[in-house]
Amino acid sequence: MKINVLLSPVVTDELSFTGKTTVVIDVLRASSTIVTALSNGAREVVPVATVEFAVKVSGGMFGGQTLLGGERNTKKIEGFALGNSPLEYSPEIVTGKTIILYTTNGSKAIVKAKFSENLFVCSFMNLEILSKHLVKLDKDFEILCSGRNNYYSMEDTICAGKLITEIQKLNERVELSDAAKASVSLNKSFGKNLLKMLEESEHGKILLENGFEDDLKFCSKINTYNIIPYFSANVLKVLPDSQNGN
Amino acid sequence: MKINVLLSPVVTDELSFTGKTTVVIDVLRASSTIVTALSNGAREVVPVATVEFAVKVSGGMFGGQTLLGGERNTKKIEGFALGNSPLEYSPEIVTGKTIILYTTNGSKAIVKAKFSENLFVCSFMNLEILSKHLVKLDKDFEILCSGRNNYYSMEDTICAGKLITEIQKLNERVELSDAAKASVSLNKSFGKNLLKMLEESEHGKILLENGFEDDLKFCSKINTYNIIPYFSANVLKVLPDSQNGN
Repeated sequence: MKINVLLSPVVTDELSFTGKTTVVIDVLRASSTIVTALSNGAREVVPVATVEFAVKVSGGMFGGQTLLGGERNTKKIEGFALGNSPLEYSPEIVTGKTIILYTTNGSKAIVKAKFSENLFVCSFMNLEILSKHLVKLDKDFEILCSGRNNYYSMEDTICAGKLITEIQKLNERVELSDAAKASVSLNKSFGKNLLKMLEESEHGKILLENGFEDDLKFCSKINTYNIIPYFSANVLKVLPDSQNGN
Repeated sequence: MKINVLLSPVVTDELSFTGKTTVVIDVLRASSTIVTALSNGAREVVPVATVEFAVKVSGGMFGGQTLLGGERNTKKIEGFALGNSPLEYSPEIVTGKTIILYTTNGSKAIVKAKFSENLFVCSFMNLEILSKHLVKLDKDFEILCSGRNNYYSMEDTICAGKLITEIQKLNERVELSDAAKASVSLNKSFGKNLLKMLEESEHGKILLENGFEDDLKFCSKINTYNIIPYFSANVLKVLPDSQNGN
């Protein structure tokens, strides 16, 4: 099994994902929010690459069943029901709903990888179940770090490194690219105290300045949820097999 | 002093370099070749972003004083006098000459950063003198890793991390971005045996397959040369101050 890590979505184009298995990570906060929303009973999450498209898509769905969520540069978007804090996506609010999600980096990265044969969403919250599933699937895969405005992001790389480390424990025949090796090494150096790592990251500091310290705590917890968001027909749903931990 | 590392040239655009101090790294092999050529007496190196432009530029220079050098995907280009092996750029061949250099990643990265106020070229071969110069200059700077076809390259990141580590020894007031912190950490993990690191890197393996093991040995040596290539008016020359180790 070969594993590669793309440290920014901008290093490749949409068509390069065709036929591949891809794992998208945006720890702060889109992938954590998606995992939380689906765990808390959202029917599906529709990731979109523009605010305009979010508004357009939500207009076409039946009233009351759709919620617009997301952020642009950390701030909630005018007219949207929800921001990009996973804490907002509680069972009371999301159960049975379709969430249209636009975020600065994460939702765009998922849309970029839409031609993948298999597309999963990963955060620290669902690392274990996803690592087991990838080992069972036994296919080469790429981890796409959403990064921050095209730049490297520490937290996404550490999450990638931790996912690979979990897989290495389960499968010895793993072949790593340069970027995958780097991610594993960086997880060894920075991945012991995830909350501290998030607090000291560039993106974490901006979230702290904006009052989102509870988000950092929430997003730094490992294996809180036991589901895998799976992308199919432009929509993210819970991978059926994953709900019972298989 | 703030230091950032760009892990691939594609994460930003040309204009973002305007007014900045930039260090371009392409260990395998453009930056090593440039340092070697200038140390061995080449008058100047003209990095170009296309083969067509290389041919055009060389045609305009006076005969006999110009050498076309470079590679496309590791292979020498038809009609070019020299490839991209630093070992070809011996004093007998390059003294007094203008080298027009096209390479798959490095020369393009330099051209991309052309709007920088200060643009230096770095390899393992000239780390020490460049680190001293950057401390003396005392300006924020960005390290641009040339990478490989837009992707992450281990050797450029390790070189960036080693340069920052040298600077940290000389200046305690250094502020690092996420990518800069990652580079420093990766140098700690992979930078002890540079030849081994090069041999195990994706790009190093390709060069070994193509018979360039001597290049890996040559490019892995630290502080072989005591010069800083400096980009001005589209041409790389030896920074005058640097020739005497100041």
